[in-house]
Amino acid sequence: MAVYTDVAAEDLAEFLKSYDIGELLSYKGIAEGVENSNFLLHTSQGAYILTLYEKRVAEDDLPYFLSLMAHLAERGVSCPQPARNRKGEVTSRLAGRPAAIINFLEGVWPRRPNVAHCAGVGEALAKMHLAGADFPLVRKNPLSVSGWRPLFALAAARADSVQAGLHDFIARELDHLEASWPSDLPVGVIHADLFPDNVFFLGDRLSGLIDFPFACNDILAYDVAICLNAWCFEPDHSFNVTKARALLKAYGRERPLSAAEEAALPLLARGASMRFLLTRLVDFLNVPEGALVQPKDPLEYVRKLRFQQNVASLNDYGITPAGCAA
Amino acid sequence: MAVYTDVAAEDLAEFLKSYDIGELLSYKGIAEGVENSNFLLHTSQGAYILTLYEKRVAEDDLPYFLSLMAHLAERGVSCPQPARNRKGEVTSRLAGRPAAIINFLEGVWPRRPNVAHCAGVGEALAKMHLAGADFPLVRKNPLSVSGWRPLFALAAARADSVQAGLHDFIARELDHLEASWPSDLPVGVIHADLFPDNVFFLGDRLSGLIDFPFACNDILAYDVAICLNAWCFEPDHSFNVTKARALLKAYGRERPLSAAEEAALPLLARGASMRFLLTRLVDFLNVPEGALVQPKDPLEYVRKLRFQQNVASLNDYGITPAGCAA
Repeated sequence: MAVYTDVAAEDLAEFLKSYDIGELLSYKGIAEGVENSNFLLHTSQGAYILTLYEKRVAEDDLPYFLSLMAHLAERGVSCPQPARNRKGEVTSRLAGRPAAIINFLEGVWPRRPNVAHCAGVGEALAKMHLAGADFPLVRKNPLSVSGWRPLFALAAARADSVQAGLHDFIARELDHLEASWPSDLPVGVIHADLFPDNVFFLGDRLSGLIDFPFACNDILAYDVAICLNAWCFEPDHSFNVTKARALLKAYGRERPLSAAEEAALPLLARGASMRFLLTRLVDFLNVPEGALVQPKDPLEYVRKLRFQQNVASLNDYGITPAGCAA
Repeated sequence: MAVYTDVAAEDLAEFLKSYDIGELLSYKGIAEGVENSNFLLHTSQGAYILTLYEKRVAEDDLPYFLSLMAHLAERGVSCPQPARNRKGEVTSRLAGRPAAIINFLEGVWPRRPNVAHCAGVGEALAKMHLAGADFPLVRKNPLSVSGWRPLFALAAARADSVQAGLHDFIARELDHLEASWPSDLPVGVIHADLFPDNVFFLGDRLSGLIDFPFACNDILAYDVAICLNAWCFEPDHSFNVTKARALLKAYGRERPLSAAEEAALPLLARGASMRFLLTRLVDFLNVPEGALVQPKDPLEYVRKLRFQQNVASLNDYGITPAGCAA
């Protein structure tokens, strides 16, 4: 949540001449993203986001994210579309950093998602999965099952300082997930971080999916499981079956889950809990001194993981198995 | 340069119903201002800035700033205009804080001001002074000559840690300024902080004056002196007479300076140097641990003060005294 790099108006106006998106009218550094510098631009042709990628972003991954957004937008998914410069490239350099411009999507993210929002995100996720089917680039998910034990190694020694018994809880669950993680489910392009702050709405109507830096190729139903965790728990930590049903049914109308995918959902949701538990735990244990950004609570995902461990059947998600009447 | 308060989309959409400025389309926290939370809003009617005033802002002063902007905008000064809520008020409350909405001005501030920019700011400053003549509210300048010694008291003990001899340099200058500060020059509403980052341009055309929290009633020519310091020095610390002449001549075309005002300019510019030297020195000596914001260099204003102490005549500003041919 910071702007790390200042850009002089004169330099930006000059930079925009290498694009065909109009003349610079104004730009403001926006308090969004923790790793990059983001600016909201107004030009004579509309509103855009300029991102300068700071050092923690792997420059090699930029073509994947930016090409993916272009690919999805061309297929009708409402997501930001990268602007191409006059050489046809989606990345340039500005202020010594890799830079990209995407069009600005109107919309706000719901702080208190309702059932309609959950249905909206289910539908949009399925459409994204379908639209990504013919995307030619491939990026392995560094935060899938094989990435979790290395993450745990960074936090293991101090895990119990966050909650007594947390070390052994994670270790046991990792054993289980590694032993039983499925390898035969449909894979494709997943968003992998479709939390409410990455989904814009105008009223109850979804207006866009944003923020693709975690997008990768992985199990499609794993993306659904991430959303179940991110959208269907209430602030009091209870799981809202009505929201889960709305999300899953809306997803299924666009891309029906197979019986195998549905059966794997509880396991995938345990994995999705583990992934966010671990990254939050590592961040929580490594807050830089003087940081203004509050780390996200890892224990929220301990609670979600415990819930998912206890899911007995798809009924707990408000649905009946595929092939049965809903 | 931070957003201190998060506002939920649902709460903001509700809040906007108390205004007649359209439906909320999007909002972004912007990295601007060090004391308040600022958001750039897009609504169905246009772009606006929402400010939430954090604790360091004196709530009592808000009516002055906001009414002044309304007053100036009504008289053709290009500055943000506060939106009135359905009760006709320019301030409301949101997220437990005083809140105000102003319209968003397109434009960018010049990082490398040229002569045309200096002429633009001179003209706009004079028009602002004229338009403020019948503004009914009054706010004393807390950072004028009587405020400088209390500021110095906060920094005196450690001044020499910033530069050897700085304590005595300031003390001697304060004695001089207090003894000779004029009391018979025309007064009125001044901006008091018209640095390049508070003046927007589209190309060379001035598109707006922003940021009025230091506005107050004080000597009009003191505002001109602040601008001479803020706009006419080069990055190598040299004074650019061409820029000064452009600024002063453009000012004079709208509001001619009297002979007494012109004669006082060097002294007023010494005072203007002292004011920013002192506030920067206090800030520099009191940077909070872990602060992300780099304090501004107080020594820049030591150099400017030394320059102003050595101004022998108005020729040093590129002009001849009033009444003489230029």
